[in-house]
Amino acid sequence: MTTYRRVVLANRPKGKATLENFRLEDTPVPDLGDGQFLVRTIWLSLDPYMRGRMDDGPSYADPVKVDETMTAGAVGEVIASRNARFAVGTIVVGAFGWADHAISDGEGVLAITGDEVPISTALGVLGMPGHTAWIGLNTILEAQPGETIVVSAATGAVGSLVGQLARLKGLRTIGVAGGADKCAHAVDTLGFDACVDHRSGDAKDLRAAIAAEAPDGVDCYFENVGGKTQAAVLPLMNTFGRIAVCGLIAWYSGQNLDQGLITPAVMRKILVSRLRVRGYIIFDHWDTYGAFRKEVAPLVAKGDVTYKEDVTDGLENAPQAFLNLLEGGNFGKQLVRVGADPT
Amino acid sequence: MTTYRRVVLANRPKGKATLENFRLEDTPVPDLGDGQFLVRTIWLSLDPYMRGRMDDGPSYADPVKVDETMTAGAVGEVIASRNARFAVGTIVVGAFGWADHAISDGEGVLAITGDEVPISTALGVLGMPGHTAWIGLNTILEAQPGETIVVSAATGAVGSLVGQLARLKGLRTIGVAGGADKCAHAVDTLGFDACVDHRSGDAKDLRAAIAAEAPDGVDCYFENVGGKTQAAVLPLMNTFGRIAVCGLIAWYSGQNLDQGLITPAVMRKILVSRLRVRGYIIFDHWDTYGAFRKEVAPLVAKGDVTYKEDVTDGLENAPQAFLNLLEGGNFGKQLVRVGADPT
Repeated sequence: MTTYRRVVLANRPKGKATLENFRLEDTPVPDLGDGQFLVRTIWLSLDPYMRGRMDDGPSYADPVKVDETMTAGAVGEVIASRNARFAVGTIVVGAFGWADHAISDGEGVLAITGDEVPISTALGVLGMPGHTAWIGLNTILEAQPGETIVVSAATGAVGSLVGQLARLKGLRTIGVAGGADKCAHAVDTLGFDACVDHRSGDAKDLRAAIAAEAPDGVDCYFENVGGKTQAAVLPLMNTFGRIAVCGLIAWYSGQNLDQGLITPAVMRKILVSRLRVRGYIIFDHWDTYGAFRKEVAPLVAKGDVTYKEDVTDGLENAPQAFLNLLEGGNFGKQLVRVGADPT
Repeated sequence: MTTYRRVVLANRPKGKATLENFRLEDTPVPDLGDGQFLVRTIWLSLDPYMRGRMDDGPSYADPVKVDETMTAGAVGEVIASRNARFAVGTIVVGAFGWADHAISDGEGVLAITGDEVPISTALGVLGMPGHTAWIGLNTILEAQPGETIVVSAATGAVGSLVGQLARLKGLRTIGVAGGADKCAHAVDTLGFDACVDHRSGDAKDLRAAIAAEAPDGVDCYFENVGGKTQAAVLPLMNTFGRIAVCGLIAWYSGQNLDQGLITPAVMRKILVSRLRVRGYIIFDHWDTYGAFRKEVAPLVAKGDVTYKEDVTDGLENAPQAFLNLLEGGNFGKQLVRVGADPT
């Protein structure tokens, strides 16, 4: 093997990302240096945060450079190694990028060989999205039993776990999702007490529908979306309510900027209801990843926590799958199958 | 004495408050019931929060009813009493309203006879505004030595103490105030490291001026204003910065709604910089009033903390003084002298 395939950022999006922003190419496999190993990618994770990396503005992480591999978490198998900690055959999860192979020195790479759960969960319910949900519910929202929580993107990789963990903790859980199928899944499979379809009306309709399911108001809002959903939920927040700002996918492409309340109304609500609004990024919380996995992996193994994956086949289809994800077209954790299962 | 004078809410403002919203009138003094006492008002406090009480919308406190006395804190002297705890001659502070006399049963009333500081301070630096500043800095912002804080309305009753306490705590303090006189006072008398005049340009100019004084960025923002100042400061906030939303005077009259960043930009900043934004109301924190006074009264007595009062004479001039306050026309804690000093 002398080359591998990767998807690079061809140019930066102006507004909405398009297929033209990506380029699939073959690139030479470098020789392994001392301490390095070669990974054959099996599963690639697509996540909304990647949209931010395509822009060249200030953000919490450096942007992807033009002509460089798009960043992503992935699960793969070590197929050549000059690193004693990562022998050939080890299953690993790491930031291997949109590529069918990757060279690593082991930094930030975790071996997951022998786990009782499918290896793809290391990218979803037991990976970064799951950890994000767990931190959001417990550390950022400080959610308490008996409270009411609204979870946007309720069937997404993060929201679906926020809802399930909140239910297990004794909260009333109200999901917001796009479409009747997702809403049915939220209630029937994920166990939300209710789910409201954001496609069925404007912010006012959405607010009325959520209010009907939240007779005691809303104490916690897990914000993954922004836009119309935020405009709907904010006025329903109880005194001393908390909002975890985890994602704002409705606004990522510079669109829907007129959706949402105006800033004076947002600020007035924060003041009058003494809200706490806190943004967070999971990368600040790696030190708790072990604690998260220790708590949630058994719940997944036992089936107390369920998860759903939306699988696209082939690295070449990653760009389209990603664009679809940004529009809410996925249903469950978005993965790309890049290679065959471990041998 | 059979009647006393008071200012009532004549009707609710539409947008900006005007003199027509108030009415001065004489009203009968009721007989004292058992446990009641009669207070002769000496000092009346005017504060921005009162604007909110004039509206009939949901807020953190009930609105003033039309034809009822405008609410206010005041300091006065007990001149008749059927309450053993409040003998004639006692100096008291309480929510006595815009009036030259008040009947009270002692609930929420504090005797301040014999304090080493002027009695008017019970309405300002050692009263509700001072307590607001102390809670904001310590509890809401969790300000730390070495950090940089921006304080809007820096020469106001609250802001001036936020700045001084922050300086004493070892923060770099940057005030924002309206006009050269206020800015000079902020630096020369209150000891701010710098003060920026918000009247000297638009939000962008203001941002550049603040940035020049904050080489290490802004860790804490004490928000008393909203509008242009908020738009200027928000992009300067450091990662893990905190914002205490205490007041939004620029937006209280339904004006300047186009000032401030748009909501998507605010939320994006909260997310990317992992900000914590928290609204608070001092009425939730009465349990710490004693601790506040114990810490700050000696600082005032020694002169380590200074304060400035803006005095208007005569109850009949309270409405105009209040309108002036809403426009930032006061300079220091706004008081109305309603009666003579204690005998």
